[in-house]
Amino acid sequence: MEGSPTEGRTVEVGGPHPYTVHVGAGLLSQIRVKERQVALMHAEDLPGEYVKEVEAGLQPVVTVRVPARDACKTLDVYANVLSHLAQVNLPRDGAVIGLGGGAVTDLAGFVAASYLRGVAFYTLPTTLLGMVDAAVGGKTGVNLPEGKNLVGAFWPPQAVWCDTDTLASLPPAVFREGAAEAFKHGLIVDPTLLTRVLDPEFRPGGALLESTLADAIAVKAAVVTRDLTEQGERAFLNFGHTLAHALEGVTHQGIAHGEAVGYGMHYAAILSCQMGGADLTGHTRKFLNWQQPTPLPALKFDEVTAYMNRDKKADSDGVRFVLLRDVAQPYLTRVPDDVLRRSFGEWLGQIQTR
Amino acid sequence: MEGSPTEGRTVEVGGPHPYTVHVGAGLLSQIRVKERQVALMHAEDLPGEYVKEVEAGLQPVVTVRVPARDACKTLDVYANVLSHLAQVNLPRDGAVIGLGGGAVTDLAGFVAASYLRGVAFYTLPTTLLGMVDAAVGGKTGVNLPEGKNLVGAFWPPQAVWCDTDTLASLPPAVFREGAAEAFKHGLIVDPTLLTRVLDPEFRPGGALLESTLADAIAVKAAVVTRDLTEQGERAFLNFGHTLAHALEGVTHQGIAHGEAVGYGMHYAAILSCQMGGADLTGHTRKFLNWQQPTPLPALKFDEVTAYMNRDKKADSDGVRFVLLRDVAQPYLTRVPDDVLRRSFGEWLGQIQTR
Repeated sequence: MEGSPTEGRTVEVGGPHPYTVHVGAGLLSQIRVKERQVALMHAEDLPGEYVKEVEAGLQPVVTVRVPARDACKTLDVYANVLSHLAQVNLPRDGAVIGLGGGAVTDLAGFVAASYLRGVAFYTLPTTLLGMVDAAVGGKTGVNLPEGKNLVGAFWPPQAVWCDTDTLASLPPAVFREGAAEAFKHGLIVDPTLLTRVLDPEFRPGGALLESTLADAIAVKAAVVTRDLTEQGERAFLNFGHTLAHALEGVTHQGIAHGEAVGYGMHYAAILSCQMGGADLTGHTRKFLNWQQPTPLPALKFDEVTAYMNRDKKADSDGVRFVLLRDVAQPYLTRVPDDVLRRSFGEWLGQIQTR
Repeated sequence: MEGSPTEGRTVEVGGPHPYTVHVGAGLLSQIRVKERQVALMHAEDLPGEYVKEVEAGLQPVVTVRVPARDACKTLDVYANVLSHLAQVNLPRDGAVIGLGGGAVTDLAGFVAASYLRGVAFYTLPTTLLGMVDAAVGGKTGVNLPEGKNLVGAFWPPQAVWCDTDTLASLPPAVFREGAAEAFKHGLIVDPTLLTRVLDPEFRPGGALLESTLADAIAVKAAVVTRDLTEQGERAFLNFGHTLAHALEGVTHQGIAHGEAVGYGMHYAAILSCQMGGADLTGHTRKFLNWQQPTPLPALKFDEVTAYMNRDKKADSDGVRFVLLRDVAQPYLTRVPDDVLRRSFGEWLGQIQTR
């Protein structure tokens, strides 16, 4: 039975509100929920047939279209969606369903978390990034003009369905973008992912898609099961993200998240080595070569570091970085300014010459 | 020692996130919290000396003034406050303090619940309504154009300080307004409150203020301790609120919440009797005579009932009312339309002739 990509796999997420992530082909039309009244949210650029498939099964009382990608992650769109739900009187025992990429499911989750102080929530991610990262862990939210994900809630879904068929409609660059988070799960927990993610069969319709995807999701599921609200090891999932968020900020979101994470992992690998860990820059360089991210504009350390200091993970004592002693040996540490600066120069030289 | 109003009292709220409500005179200047960086929010009409007292003790990194009363409970003000916190980089281990009436503390709580997906929250209610109702129970939120409290979160504070000195600066009508919730706690749980709330010594500076207030808070504390997210008995706290919310809606918030609750309790008492319970209308009529609420405009049943059906407590099967079999014997039930209509006529006749 094992290995057949059409059968589907499941990943269990534990904690006080356990739920199941379903991974497989052809799931969209099979989705059913126990709530009688549901609101469906999706981005306006989502293929219409996906919306129709879900609507046919779920019969939502309202379908709300929102702007695509991060344009939907604003408090204005949030307010607008809430008003839609209130206008159709979606009841407390109703549900909110987010269909689309990570931005839409993040917004949908925060809507579900706060409409009537919380209703049931389901996610149907349709991008690799959404499946590996956004759909598991219960983090929901929107951006502020001052920064990304500065407002939101921890609100786990009741269930997640990752329909692998939806990945085929996306440009290859968007698939490779999302692979950054799966590769990151290889670095921090499961070394087998380091080769599987770069395997030619890890692609839409590929023989390794479903199993690799399920195992990458399982890494995050295991971590958040043990640490729901990011008091401890969940922070390790932020490997590469401190610089990534700064790159997104300094380019005014001019770089896709997964590409920023690709760049950020390489910087974190350099820092890890500088701070006495194993040299894992071969892995992160290999990933960048595979991912082929959009080249970055000219960057100044002082500008980037200002954004790093504003990172949501910063506490009163400043920023802490997730570094690696070796593969699957993450730890959290502050890094001296001179090491940050020197490593930045090294990183910049390497990504520019890429 | 017991009975001395200057010593202060405490009420413990249990559940997964227990906290203490402090009730007493002169508390504002004594408040200290463990978080190093705090943001203080207060309504613009709050006496400046209250703000100064709190600022002197807490040294907030930012003090945010918001519009008074329900004008602050909008998603626009919410967005504005969040941006203020982001601009001063309030960290995850910081805290949000709400100082003022129930509207400000409701807003502050939702800000605390969602800024960086949740930071510590403290409330310093300065109105009787805020002390008895809004400050305990963890309900936070704002209004939508479509209705009151349609968006928010359950986010219990770390501690609540009710400085009884602040009640002296409010007009007597505002004190009597807030007494509705304390009286309601008498009807649903603690009959001794029915006489104590109407006692002339239950007033700012009065001998029965602190003890009655603490006991009224204790009723709510006990209920929410047993039922944090309103799955069961917490619904009983909504006695009188189904009509109250409809009256607020139909008058476009032209009536104060506590006065709406006063009217709503009388309607619920009539319904309770009609549905076979004891006749408690003597109590609710007595309360209305004491409270002297603003007279209501002309009301039509069909108009009011449309708002009742939109009540947040409605599920897919419609509205349920909290009624009383007798004092301290609340239950939840649907009420036939003809009983609702007939009772409305009775109620209207009695409150008009008041």
